[in-house]
Amino acid sequence: MVLIFSGSSPPVGQADEAVVNEFALIARLTRDLPGNDSVVVGAGDDCAVLDLGTPDRLWLLKTDAVVEGVHYRSDTPPERIGHKALGRGLSDVAAMAGTPTAALVTLGLPRRFDVEFVAKIYAGMNELARRHGVAIVGGETTTNPDRVLMSVSLLGFVPREKMLLRSGAKPGDAIFVTGELGGSLAGKHLEFEPRLAEAHWLAEHFDVHAMIDLSDGLAGDLRHVLKASGVGAELRQSAVPVSRAAKLAAKAGDAAKPAFVAALTDGEDFELLFTVAGKDAVPVLDAWKKAFPSLRLSCIGKIMAGEGILLRDPTGVRPLTAHGYVHFS
Amino acid sequence: MVLIFSGSSPPVGQADEAVVNEFALIARLTRDLPGNDSVVVGAGDDCAVLDLGTPDRLWLLKTDAVVEGVHYRSDTPPERIGHKALGRGLSDVAAMAGTPTAALVTLGLPRRFDVEFVAKIYAGMNELARRHGVAIVGGETTTNPDRVLMSVSLLGFVPREKMLLRSGAKPGDAIFVTGELGGSLAGKHLEFEPRLAEAHWLAEHFDVHAMIDLSDGLAGDLRHVLKASGVGAELRQSAVPVSRAAKLAAKAGDAAKPAFVAALTDGEDFELLFTVAGKDAVPVLDAWKKAFPSLRLSCIGKIMAGEGILLRDPTGVRPLTAHGYVHFS
Repeated sequence: MVLIFSGSSPPVGQADEAVVNEFALIARLTRDLPGNDSVVVGAGDDCAVLDLGTPDRLWLLKTDAVVEGVHYRSDTPPERIGHKALGRGLSDVAAMAGTPTAALVTLGLPRRFDVEFVAKIYAGMNELARRHGVAIVGGETTTNPDRVLMSVSLLGFVPREKMLLRSGAKPGDAIFVTGELGGSLAGKHLEFEPRLAEAHWLAEHFDVHAMIDLSDGLAGDLRHVLKASGVGAELRQSAVPVSRAAKLAAKAGDAAKPAFVAALTDGEDFELLFTVAGKDAVPVLDAWKKAFPSLRLSCIGKIMAGEGILLRDPTGVRPLTAHGYVHFS
Repeated sequence: MVLIFSGSSPPVGQADEAVVNEFALIARLTRDLPGNDSVVVGAGDDCAVLDLGTPDRLWLLKTDAVVEGVHYRSDTPPERIGHKALGRGLSDVAAMAGTPTAALVTLGLPRRFDVEFVAKIYAGMNELARRHGVAIVGGETTTNPDRVLMSVSLLGFVPREKMLLRSGAKPGDAIFVTGELGGSLAGKHLEFEPRLAEAHWLAEHFDVHAMIDLSDGLAGDLRHVLKASGVGAELRQSAVPVSRAAKLAAKAGDAAKPAFVAALTDGEDFELLFTVAGKDAVPVLDAWKKAFPSLRLSCIGKIMAGEGILLRDPTGVRPLTAHGYVHFS
């Protein structure tokens, strides 16, 4: 169950109460969910994983929603709404090194709406779907009287031996992130391209131990990996790739936090975080530069025995307490 | 794409404009959806049907939502909300003679909510899921500031040779409905049991030509079958099973329409409508009485060449113009 970006960031250091709130709710709801023989991985990773009896593949299920005024503004171009609604789930499929197959759409609309507006939402979604070979196989239009809500469910697959979970990180692993982090609200959260090609390439060429997509912010999502894997991490502050948008916002005084804190805690980067054995760190970096010369890959630290995140900066090493974004703050 | 019950019924005879409105939107949105090789049936039947490479099975995908103040009242017991949210989709899986495998839940909640309330929604959903062997494999909690919205996506399967679509009705077929129709708003819409066992039994024992679940009202859903199959129908008014709830409402003057019209046009009966060859009509009725002695099965008419619905009553035969419920009226 992926927590999502609330659209307004809690000041760093005040997020813990909100985190506890939503985490407690999810822990309670997922404690006692009905299961059956098909379930390989239930609630708690980027996607659920099912064994449907196909010899070479496991199947992934994921649902993600965007809500007007929460995940996008009322004046957001409708094509971008459709793009984001599908893209969020595709990013989760990428995090499992999966391939998306089919999507269903639930579109909640006020009683009066503009048909052109709806057609443009679909156009944005369809364009992204075509680029990644996803079939849109139906859905539902329903009434959500006060605002637009769009939920997209995805079915995808992963080769049986290539499934990548959050739980495989090991002490000594190098931690990598794609792209640059923070400041997504300035535009990227509506325009990001899910890292499906990059994830497939990684799973094909390297022994990736754990992977997650960055939707809740680096600090929050890394914590998900650490908790699932039973390990800790040390981050090098200077290695964390801070986006130009986060730097500009900090410089302009638009942001309530320094650019580095934005990179740690802003949600909706939709980049990949993954770990490989320390010995593979340099080979990954070298091969990546040839495969994806225009997309930055950064080794931001290492997995340690223990728990929690330590941050190394020029003044020393200290525990990191900032969380990513959560709902119900 | 199943149209859903709006909670307030348009007067019979005034529904056509609303029908055109939502039908036009859906026709436009589904005209140009992205596809791929996995798609056997896309948008337009009770479920989408996918070929995922399993030798004996095809796979079904379906999503359905319920919205506070639209599909249930603010004072509806939360367990019933969860039951209905999952039950709607299960009814669609039943309409394909399918078996549900796994579900994903999207729960949109106001920023302030009662954790006990949410736990009870899940309890109602989980109880129904356990009864039908459905795994709840995850989902998402998100903010929908003004009201609760719950969307459930389902993956299920059907034996390859047993898939039942809306499009198989043939002239001369007998038309059957399970249960009793109309007046669902008095309570049944929150408590119905999806007709999965009955659908499996039908597909196993008889050559069912077409099947659909009654969510939009008998008249509207029968029209979906007729249109998909390129045929017409004649209904015998006296054979349509009118529910006690519809009769009571008509008698009490609560309803804006006679009980028979309620049975034709009220939504959310969640019963099955199916057709078999005329020669199978009596065998189906006889075997049904032994298999499901406590659930009424009614032969309400026959499939004809042509198009549209004719209604036979003691005064003669006339075209039926009433539609089922639609959104965006």
